[in-house]
Amino acid sequence: MNHHQKVIGVVGGMGPEATASFFYKLIRSTEAKKDQDHYRIVIDNNPKIPDRTKAILGQGESPLPALIETAKNVERAGADVIAVPCITSNYFLAEVQKEVKTPIANVFEALEQYLKTDGFNVRKVGILCTTGTRKMGLFQKNLPFDICYPSEQSQESKVMEAIYGAEGIKQGNTGIVPKCLLQEAALELIDAGVDVIISGCTEIELALKQEDVEIPLIDPMQVLAQSLTNSKN
Amino acid sequence: MNHHQKVIGVVGGMGPEATASFFYKLIRSTEAKKDQDHYRIVIDNNPKIPDRTKAILGQGESPLPALIETAKNVERAGADVIAVPCITSNYFLAEVQKEVKTPIANVFEALEQYLKTDGFNVRKVGILCTTGTRKMGLFQKNLPFDICYPSEQSQESKVMEAIYGAEGIKQGNTGIVPKCLLQEAALELIDAGVDVIISGCTEIELALKQEDVEIPLIDPMQVLAQSLTNSKN
Repeated sequence: MNHHQKVIGVVGGMGPEATASFFYKLIRSTEAKKDQDHYRIVIDNNPKIPDRTKAILGQGESPLPALIETAKNVERAGADVIAVPCITSNYFLAEVQKEVKTPIANVFEALEQYLKTDGFNVRKVGILCTTGTRKMGLFQKNLPFDICYPSEQSQESKVMEAIYGAEGIKQGNTGIVPKCLLQEAALELIDAGVDVIISGCTEIELALKQEDVEIPLIDPMQVLAQSLTNSKN
Repeated sequence: MNHHQKVIGVVGGMGPEATASFFYKLIRSTEAKKDQDHYRIVIDNNPKIPDRTKAILGQGESPLPALIETAKNVERAGADVIAVPCITSNYFLAEVQKEVKTPIANVFEALEQYLKTDGFNVRKVGILCTTGTRKMGLFQKNLPFDICYPSEQSQESKVMEAIYGAEGIKQGNTGIVPKCLLQEAALELIDAGVDVIISGCTEIELALKQEDVEIPLIDPMQVLAQSLTNSKN
């Protein structure tokens, strides 16, 4: 066999679709001419991990023990680095890192490096995400840029409506209705002077594509995948 | 946590895209209202496993040691059943099963059961696959039905052209050219009296869809995913 190439571990299941999507991003960020050029990737897709948002809001069981158990399982399976394709879980990852030796890749560090080195000249970053993620302040705490959200009214009537509304993404609609709502929220951010927009939850990227906005639209999980692979992009 | 629900193990990486596609099939075959209703799935996506087809044709290293090592890794990670989303690898799975206690799900048994119980009244089965898979005779050896392939000429000028041709699927084309070639091969099978057609390699399903043929078009990995989950389909 080849000399040892890094094995990428994934603590997944939050949710399973986001994990499968991240798996594709890892594969497609890898320059490969044949199967054997790809990275070995060990995934523990553990959807039994308790809800992160509920726990942060004090409404449910802590996901920490299950997160630690899953990370240890991925470590035992041979991971040299661990990725966690769930923005909200970052609230708990410092505690998880204390329990495993394998480094946990930090999506915010990957984002910061990407935004600082890729010629964007970024000062102000717009975020489209759920109200829950917004309230946790994860982006403000972890990124050294001005962070800008849609107005509180637009957050509810556009972003949340696009995700949770009767014709929204969670209902399986990824067409014109959620796209237009998100485009309106994006335009508001652009008017506020943001240099880039971050798709701060998995649902956004299903309806809003780069061609729908005139400034860079950045998917944190794509950036994380690229930072872990040999992608030249 | 819930009472112990089966953990599904996946020996993957042959190739990585087929593994990611199978992961989606498992997720979408599961009836779930929330993340926690989904199965825990442990995947070792190991693309370093040597090429199966080359080995069978005596042109390369055996994949057996790497297959066994990967299956043991998935077993250690907690799998209660192991799935291998690669038709060709079935050539080696009896030997792998001798080395792990965890049962390896048999895609041909799942197919046989599906074809016998789902009201198809199947006698004759058409197969669209690569010439390599056809020569190995895996479908003939493992399915108790009449097995029918396109003529040798169509196998090369239609099926292989659709997959490997200059405008083929391996070049990233999944549009009208490969679709039409595969449709012509499918029509030939229908004229020969087959009751269903099996998409015998991962590439076929990217270009040929159920709506393109008038008889049932069956994806073995979808059937395997359904047999492992609680799908009612």
